[in-house]
Parts: sequence; structure tokens; C-alpha cells
Amino acid sequence: MPNISIIYFSGTGHTTKLAEAAQKGAASVAGVTTRLIVISGEDIVKGRYHNEAVFAELDSSDAIIFGSPTYMGGPAAQFKAFADATGGKWFAGAWRDKLAAGFTISQGASGDKLSTLHYLFTLAMQLGMVWIGLPELPMNDQGINRLSSYSGVMAQAGQESPDIAPNAADKRTAELLGQRVAQYAVKLKK
Amino acid sequence: MPNISIIYFSGTGHTTKLAEAAQKGAASVAGVTTRLIVISGEDIVKGRYHNEAVFAELDSSDAIIFGSPTYMGGPAAQFKAFADATGGKWFAGAWRDKLAAGFTISQGASGDKLSTLHYLFTLAMQLGMVWIGLPELPMNDQGINRLSSYSGVMAQAGQESPDIAPNAADKRTAELLGQRVAQYAVKLKK
Amino acid sequence: MPNISIIYFSGTGHTTKLAEAAQKGAASVAGVTTRLIVISGEDIVKGRYHNEAVFAELDSSDAIIFGSPTYMGGPAAQFKAFADATGGKWFAGAWRDKLAAGFTISQGASGDKLSTLHYLFTLAMQLGMVWIGLPELPMNDQGINRLSSYSGVMAQAGQESPDIAPNAADKRTAELLGQRVAQYAVKLKK
Amino acid sequence: MPNISIIYFSGTGHTTKLAEAAQKGAASVAGVTTRLIVISGEDIVKGRYHNEAVFAELDSSDAIIFGSPTYMGGPAAQFKAFADATGGKWFAGAWRDKLAAGFTISQGASGDKLSTLHYLFTLAMQLGMVWIGLPELPMNDQGINRLSSYSGVMAQAGQESPDIAPNAADKRTAELLGQRVAQYAVKLKK
Repeated sequence: MPNISIIYFSGTGHTTKLAEAAQKGAASVAGVTTRLIVISGEDIVKGRYHNEAVFAELDSSDAIIFGSPTYMGGPAAQFKAFADATGGKWFAGAWRDKLAAGFTISQGASGDKLSTLHYLFTLAMQLGMVWIGLPELPMNDQGINRLSSYSGVMAQAGQESPDIAPNAADKRTAELLGQRVAQYAVKLKK
Repeated sequence: MPNISIIYFSGTGHTTKLAEAAQKGAASVAGVTTRLIVISGEDIVKGRYHNEAVFAELDSSDAIIFGSPTYMGGPAAQFKAFADATGGKWFAGAWRDKLAAGFTISQGASGDKLSTLHYLFTLAMQLGMVWIGLPELPMNDQGINRLSSYSGVMAQAGQESPDIAPNAADKRTAELLGQRVAQYAVKLKK
Repeated sequence: MPNISIIYFSGTGHTTKLAEAAQKGAASVAGVTTRLIVISGEDIVKGRYHNEAVFAELDSSDAIIFGSPTYMGGPAAQFKAFADATGGKWFAGAWRDKLAAGFTISQGASGDKLSTLHYLFTLAMQLGMVWIGLPELPMNDQGINRLSSYSGVMAQAGQESPDIAPNAADKRTAELLGQRVAQYAVKLKK
Repeated sequence: MPNISIIYFSGTGHTTKLAEAAQKGAASVAGVTTRLIVISGEDIVKGRYHNEAVFAELDSSDAIIFGSPTYMGGPAAQFKAFADATGGKWFAGAWRDKLAAGFTISQGASGDKLSTLHYLFTLAMQLGMVWIGLPELPMNDQGINRLSSYSGVMAQAGQESPDIAPNAADKRTAELLGQRVAQYAVKLKK
């Protein structure tokens, strides 16, 4: 049974909401298991991330969805510390052929969020993964993909409580990404 | 039987060599058909590309590999004219779920070729496609992926004849990308 | 007296409005001259751009502001044809030390417009130019930089008439970019 | 008298060599002072960077050159932690109009180093800075800009000692970038 892991960093709880939505979407597909894995600052010592249990979980996943807020035009340093720790997986080709996808969030409409998604893609490519994007057109009544992003999910949140932002449309967009990744995981596992 | 199309522009014949190599790699996979489609300057009028036969071929393909030289830090204008002409496919979601991959070539070692590959990826994402990268590590005796690119194939050629450049290693790298795309096309078609 | 040129392609007239705004902003600075140069599809034959008069004007400019709509995740092919035609300037280092800046427009909020701005930057870097960005925070009452872009100006327009879109805020944002470029041109000319 | 600061992270000592070269190039320009500032892992707690003395030095600089190895397709997490800590400078516009430039190093020829340089640029743009690139053509006898990068300096080093790699050509390239930044700092300070 294919497993979909969502690994993310959240500074204020907003990214957590997107991660949960992506998991919900993945879990809606019959025949998959899902895992929600948070990157904890506690696991980062002098800028280096260490957590063998997390890597064991990811090693056994068929798909990994990466999530991070966009801070100063790129992924959060905490996410990047995790990414840097995948160097051994790169060298061993250990994650080759796993599926990958990504989501990010920041206050502004654009806010250089594409820079973060392009980074998540670049990371996945170094790891030999296959990238699943977001093929939803923004022209719809539900606000799905309202920011018009295709490489992955973009959402918005500022100082509001995570109960309010990201909004329902942004969470629904993340759900659709999770669902799409899970559907591909099922198809490729056969 | 899944079809893999390679569509490319070539200004001097070097990109053609990569395209042929990608086709050779794809054709090495049992149970696929392949097509090599060149973007002709003749089909570009006032900067706009028109060729219904080409689009009919791509519509019926399961995977499309995009190729362009890197000119001034991005894809050739001729390739971009083709890309702009896919707007209708974007709006209709007509290429959703097709596989995509890319290759590029220029004289320098880096030469901003990543900018071109990131563009090809961005285009594929707008079209709802799934991106297949190049999971080959550069540490090998055959010069495979000698420029250390993962998002797609990077190759080098300057003023030399296309008989000499790109070199055998670069062409072998393009073959491996074509093969990988074809293998995924077979897997997903089942 | 420093000269600021704005060179742009416009498919529907929306980009023209931004270009005019950038020129207005530049012209508001004492002691500069400005030129508005449109890239015409008529000058593109088989995907290649030719117009010696345009290049003579740019050769004699101290700053060049690049503008293009974002089509399918990148600059319009017509703009790219112009960019490809700068290869001789690259080789000769002819535009080294000129100032550069950029603006783009598309229907969506993000719509991969950052990909276009990153391309314009990459082009300017190949040409040895110095890049002037947009240091305006989106937190203001006038809607200045409402899409939160810093590498250059992002604006929005869909099917509306160019009389309506881009809106006043987007045009004011382009004005501020033009003004900033002109101020640097004056400073560096001394 | 304008001050040029070079702030960098180095994991193995190779980036330090580039940083020293950039400083040497800057210091070769009459009438400037230079500072070499290393990002220390000791200053990163749970992924967050804190060092008020470093920020005081940068606040009083006219130009800041950013340097980081490329790890897994982007800047090192330690550099990113520093970048994330500039959020207050972004909000206050405190670094607006300072000059910026960047350099990076990794083992491969391309190795997605452009992704790191594009990130450094994106960061600088959020901070309202002006970007100075590298206008050196690779066609020269000394190996200057041998990797053909224009957005900033790209260099190569693998497992060799920092005494050997980056090589003399890469260090000379970094020197030229430092010199160029310093020349602009002098020009703009007048």
C-alpha cells in the first residue's frame, strides 16, 4: 500500500494547516496510508538537521510532499536544514523515483513564493524524484488556486490566527494537490 | 501503446543531436512509439507559432520532451513562440497528466542553462504535466551528466560541427532521459 | 544628460500602459531624457528580431527598462526574439554597466510572473548590466506593489480594456520603478 | 569612505577562500574599507540566527556581498538562517539602496548553482538593494568566469583541500566581482 508523507516546517501554524489539508486530500484516495511529519527546530543544531526516525519514515514513503513558509524569498532555514540533510540520500540515490510535490505560504500575493516552489522542485530533482504539480485553473467559483500557481500550492497568511488563514480556498487547493499525489502513487505502485 | 514526442528547436544542429539521442533512448524501451518534431522558423509569423499538424501529434502523445538551446539565458525565441502557442492547451487542460522532460545546450559550462530548464518545467506545470528529471550522478566513468544537472539534460557545444559537439557523453545523457521518460509512460499507461 | 529607454512588447495594450507609466516616472526626474520603444512583430522574421534603429537607441541609453507580458510562464516570444538579438551586445560587452530593470503583467495574482522577472534579470546579467529592483513594501494605502514583488514590477490584467487594467495602483508602481532607475542614472552619470 | 562587507558561510573552508578573494578585490580599490564576516553555526539556535554585532556591521556597510556553498540545489541552511534574520531590515527598509552581489561554490560544473545565485538576488531585491553582477566573458586565457556565470560568481570544489580548490581562476573571478562592487560603491558615494 503506497505511503504519502507530508514533511513541513511551520513557524506560526499557518503552514501546518496547509500540511493537514494536503494529508486530508491524500487520505481521501483509497488504498494509501499517510504521514504528517513536522520539522522541529529542536532537531537543528548549529544549522544542521538530525533525526533518524524522520528519515526512516521518508525512506519508506512512495511520495513526499514538501512544505515551507516563504521567508525572505525562499524556504525557511529550518526546511533548508532538513533539505541539506538529504545529501546522503542524493549520493545513494535512495529517493530515486519517489513522487514529490510542494506547497508554500506567505503574506503577499506573489511574495516570491515561486522562488520557494522552484527550490522545492530543484531539491526533488537532485534526489531523482518525479514532480507532481497543480493543474487547477484559477477560473472557478471556489477560489481554488486563486493565486494562479502551477508548480505547487501557493497560499496566503499574515498576522491572522491559523484558524482564519490560510482560508478555505487555499486549504482546498492543498487538498487537491495531496489527492493528486496519492492518485499517482496508487497508479505507479500497481 | 504510449507515444513519446520530442519537440525541439535547433539553430545550428547541435540541439538536433540531443533530440535524436533522446528519441533513441525512448525507442529503446519496448512497447512505445516515438516522434521527433522540429520547430521550424517557417511556422513563426510575427513572433507567433502556427502548425496544427504539430499540435495534433502532441495532443496524441503520452509524453513530450522539450528541447531548446539556451540563448541569452533562456530558451530560444523560436521555442518560446511554440510555448506561447500552447495557451489553448492550458485553458482546455488538454495536456493534463502527460509526462514532460527537457534538455538544453549552450557553449559554457553553466551558461544559465538552469534558467532554460526551469522555464521548461514552469511551462509543463502550467500545462498540468508531470515532470521527469535526470537522476544520474556525475560521478561515473562515462561522463554521464558531467555538467551535474538534475532538472533535465544540460549539454555543451560552441562553434564545432554538430558531428563533434555535443559529445558522446552528453548524447548518452540525453538517451538516458529519453529512456526514463518512456519507462514512466509505459508504467502509467497500464 | 542620461537617457532612460523603456523597451517592451505588448500583445493587447496592457503592457503598453505599464511602459508609459515607467516612462512617466523616469521623466519626472530632472535632467534625464526618456524613450519608449515598442517591440514590433513586424521586425520578427522566422523568430529572429532585426531592427538596427532600435539597437542604436539602446546603445546610446544609460538605462534600459525591459517589459513583457508573462505568457505561459515566461516572457512573450516577441520579447525573447529581441533578447536573442542582443547576442552581439553580449559578445562585445557593449551594454556593460548600463542600468536595467523590468516589469511584467498577466491575468493571475502570481501566474509565474516571477519567472519572467528572473528571466529579465538573467538577461541583464549576461549583458553586464546593473539591476535596479522595486523596494516598495505592499503595506500602504495606495496599492503600490500590491502583488508584493521586489525583483521588478508585477501587474494584473485579463480581458478588460487597457483603459481599465492595469489599474491605477499597478501603474503607479511602474512609475516608481521608472523614477528609481532615472535617479540612479543621474547619480551614476555625475 | 564606503565600506564593503562580505558575509558568508563556509562548511569546509572552500567558500572562505572565495570570500577572501572577493575582499582582496574590493580592497584593491582606493578609498574603501572592507570587512569579512563569517556566519557561524554557533549563532544559529533551533534554526534561527542571532548576532547583533554582525547586523550592526552590515547596517553601516554601503555594499554587502553574499556568499554560500550550494547545498542540495540552494544556499546552505546556515546562510538561509542569516537571510531569514534580515526580516526586520526588510520591514524597516534599512538596507534599501545598498549594493549587493553574490558568489557560490559546489562540486559540479553546473550543480544548480544558478539556483543559489537567483536566491541571493531575490533576497537582495526584497531588501531594496541594487544588484551588481559579473560581466566577464569566459573566453579568456586566465580561466576567469570559466563556468560562464553572470548573475554572480560560480566556483568549483569537491573533496580537495581548500589550499587547492577553488582554483586560482575561480579566486581571480571572485576578486573581480569584489573589485567591481567596490568601484560602484565609490561612484555612488560621491
